[in-house]
Amino acid sequence: MDLAAKIRSIPDFPKPGIIFKDITTLLADGPALRESVQKMLELYKDQVIDVVVGIESRGFIFASILAYELGVGMAPVRKPGRLPYKKISESYELEYGSDSLEMHIDAVKEGQRVLIVDDLLATGGTVEATARLVERLGGKVAGCCFLIELDFLKARDKLKNYRVEALVHYGAE
Amino acid sequence: MDLAAKIRSIPDFPKPGIIFKDITTLLADGPALRESVQKMLELYKDQVIDVVVGIESRGFIFASILAYELGVGMAPVRKPGRLPYKKISESYELEYGSDSLEMHIDAVKEGQRVLIVDDLLATGGTVEATARLVERLGGKVAGCCFLIELDFLKARDKLKNYRVEALVHYGAE
Repeated sequence: MDLAAKIRSIPDFPKPGIIFKDITTLLADGPALRESVQKMLELYKDQVIDVVVGIESRGFIFASILAYELGVGMAPVRKPGRLPYKKISESYELEYGSDSLEMHIDAVKEGQRVLIVDDLLATGGTVEATARLVERLGGKVAGCCFLIELDFLKARDKLKNYRVEALVHYGAE
Repeated sequence: MDLAAKIRSIPDFPKPGIIFKDITTLLADGPALRESVQKMLELYKDQVIDVVVGIESRGFIFASILAYELGVGMAPVRKPGRLPYKKISESYELEYGSDSLEMHIDAVKEGQRVLIVDDLLATGGTVEATARLVERLGGKVAGCCFLIELDFLKARDKLKNYRVEALVHYGAE
């Protein structure tokens, strides 16, 4: 199945000049959703995964299904102020300014192997912050998995210490 | 399995006097996550479901897994400004003021049977708004499914036209 054909491009969202990759058309397609998950599982089938971490909020979608299929737990990484228990925080750079992500201190345990999941890999800032959160809790990043990677933003330069996989690649802006 | 025992209560979050039900401890437990999903599937096994709608953002977790297991699509209902394509909006009341939710116009098609999913049923305002979104697009609400229901908030009064199911009930504040 051509998964790229299931993704809708929306010009000028959220601002002029950006072509937004809208995954809702893929999610709406039961067989495409299933095939996406099966391909992600296939990519990491040689790895032991103890926890799947999903980055708020679209990352929750694939992270949850992967955790379910692997029979392990799913841990959310969230924007500031949304997690209720004791937590740690890491900031990342935005085009203008910075933002941060939080994780519960019991989301990952010492020595656990963690798969980080999001729908789209852009500049990699949020993923890098998530990897730091996992490592501060003693976890090992077994991989970073995405439905989409915007290759031209070169996130892999930032994530070169990790195994990064994506199902659909966009090579030019 | 006692799913209620997997949920953590956090006093005074997000504000004094509120006991927040933290589901991250259940999500972190692979077998508890699996059993929750299996019980939800069991509740609606007599229903034909064409689309599963998840309410941002914790609703995405169970909605995604249920859609995947049913082999159908998952449609997100989101806070204002986050969906990139043509959409409709419905508002709901908050304790002070109101807020709204949005859905893409192609998220549900005429005649489709829709399962609405969220992690927690409180006052039911967001669920009622979501049901209106589904119905405006010509869908039929086959059911509303939650991990947790706060019975004392009496959301069922608001949702009396729908089939409502929850796995864990809290009877008093």
